[in-house]
Amino acid sequence: MIKAYAAFEPGGKLKPFEYDPGVLGIDDVEIDVEHCGICHSDLSMINNDWGFSEYPLVPGHEVVGTIAIVGEQVTNFKIGQRVGLGWHAGYCMTCHSCLDGDHNLCAQSQGTIIGRHGGFADKVRAQAASVVALPDAMDMQAAGPLFCGGITVYNPLVQFDVKPSDKVGVIGVGGLGHIALQFLNAWGCEVTAFTSNDSKKAEALTMGAHHTINSRNITEIEAAAGQFDLLLSTVNVKLDWNAYVATLRPKGRLHFVGATLDPLDLGVMPLIMGQRSISGSPVGSPANIANMLAFAVRHNINPVVENYRLDQVNEALENLEAGNIRYRIVLS
Amino acid sequence: MIKAYAAFEPGGKLKPFEYDPGVLGIDDVEIDVEHCGICHSDLSMINNDWGFSEYPLVPGHEVVGTIAIVGEQVTNFKIGQRVGLGWHAGYCMTCHSCLDGDHNLCAQSQGTIIGRHGGFADKVRAQAASVVALPDAMDMQAAGPLFCGGITVYNPLVQFDVKPSDKVGVIGVGGLGHIALQFLNAWGCEVTAFTSNDSKKAEALTMGAHHTINSRNITEIEAAAGQFDLLLSTVNVKLDWNAYVATLRPKGRLHFVGATLDPLDLGVMPLIMGQRSISGSPVGSPANIANMLAFAVRHNINPVVENYRLDQVNEALENLEAGNIRYRIVLS
Repeated sequence: MIKAYAAFEPGGKLKPFEYDPGVLGIDDVEIDVEHCGICHSDLSMINNDWGFSEYPLVPGHEVVGTIAIVGEQVTNFKIGQRVGLGWHAGYCMTCHSCLDGDHNLCAQSQGTIIGRHGGFADKVRAQAASVVALPDAMDMQAAGPLFCGGITVYNPLVQFDVKPSDKVGVIGVGGLGHIALQFLNAWGCEVTAFTSNDSKKAEALTMGAHHTINSRNITEIEAAAGQFDLLLSTVNVKLDWNAYVATLRPKGRLHFVGATLDPLDLGVMPLIMGQRSISGSPVGSPANIANMLAFAVRHNINPVVENYRLDQVNEALENLEAGNIRYRIVLS
Repeated sequence: MIKAYAAFEPGGKLKPFEYDPGVLGIDDVEIDVEHCGICHSDLSMINNDWGFSEYPLVPGHEVVGTIAIVGEQVTNFKIGQRVGLGWHAGYCMTCHSCLDGDHNLCAQSQGTIIGRHGGFADKVRAQAASVVALPDAMDMQAAGPLFCGGITVYNPLVQFDVKPSDKVGVIGVGGLGHIALQFLNAWGCEVTAFTSNDSKKAEALTMGAHHTINSRNITEIEAAAGQFDLLLSTVNVKLDWNAYVATLRPKGRLHFVGATLDPLDLGVMPLIMGQRSISGSPVGSPANIANMLAFAVRHNINPVVENYRLDQVNEALENLEAGNIRYRIVLS
């Protein structure tokens, strides 16, 4: 039996829950969970914000632990090996996206907490291909958030060929943004943090930003006209996106990793005149997660985390919902 | 004196107009105009749709002719050489975009018909750097429309690294779209033409399309879900852009070269989940115009034109405004 914490109804408190995971699939592994980050999408799934949650629901998709059991066809992991697991716990492995190395875009991918049970537990299972080995030098305690928040902001740097000579703005300094600042600084870029929270400005500068701009002060935004090669938006609120587009240089890109639900209302002419792009991306592939972990170790990049015990999960979720976290929670 | 046709007020008929161009600039050339295409933006400028027209206004920015005089510092052209001139008649030559080969994105670029007099005339002047030599094998009669309509649809293939293995859709089969179909077919792509005009479907197939879809039939559009690497929109009307985004494959791009004035109203989640991009671009740089001309000659790509004499310009403009042209007008 696997001992977990589950929500039993939309928005419900998490309660202890045991389940029998059945026979281990031949391509799967079982992981002894040591740490598990909490992501805003865990909260969205608990609350059934997206309409496809199934209960009991065991959240947790920023898992770090060690391999406990391997399925009979698994050759890439051995018992006791340190690994991590993110948003995806399985891929079809044969669609065009999977065969092209874009497993994260597989239409048949399985979410770790969608129709499966996640990492707020003593053990979790996943297809071996979706699990990534931790580099030896990586600290397990803070690594969890790299597997969802981290790869979400790292992946665009690879996908869109961001260059060390680029000027980049990060919109929002939170769970995703504070990791983005570190990655972009290490990537060699000139980094500007956009935040509406004055108390985060000094911290943003210590995490890699060279400059800060108030994300809701239109005068400051307008003063940055034509500056940025890339803007990476990590927020889920509506901002004045046309004003942000105007801060892009010719050929610049406004890229969304935060899921704002309001339509974008974008003018076409500023895109045409400046050859600008608008885009989005989800988490990354296993290969890019491995690539990111090596980069994070080499540059000493660590999520800034607050630690809670697994039995304090409801308190942790309340603090996350209240916006009190700097900058990511890890359950241990 | 240069003999031209000019509009003397917004929306006015064109009338004969003579002007003294003054002393030729040391970096400029004077071209004897042989042919000049008519572009929708000539009409927009005549009508002052964009609010910055100056009268008398001599339209015409798809010019083909021969070099008549060269300024004293001009070394790249000789008298009598066959050349063309498009939307831009000058660049600052020293901004970052110019120095990087992106003259078409120069913020100080000079439009051929903005604050200058264009090609509905016996002669026109331009900075030598903005003029491009015609390949020997190129037919002068039909080449004019390549210098604005042609480069506008060719440039994105270069800028966004479109591959011969890509599936591409062209939205709108008109002055721009009919050239795009030819370029994309020669580029090696699988090409679909989107048009609401059933009578254009058969012609689209002869111009390079492998398939056609009715651009206003939502059932046909929905049936194409997840297919395209690139959609190139040449229209200036509002379509159901979210339905078009759904026809893109993962990593696909919806690219605008037609200036629709309504905001795009795009949902963010389909961009994030499929790593999709929305973008736009204007005309191309002189280097890419030269690149395009060589490609057009090698692949026997020619705009399909209707010829009028320069003194029939008002009749030609009326037919353009009425949407009766297949597919581009050239004045000779």
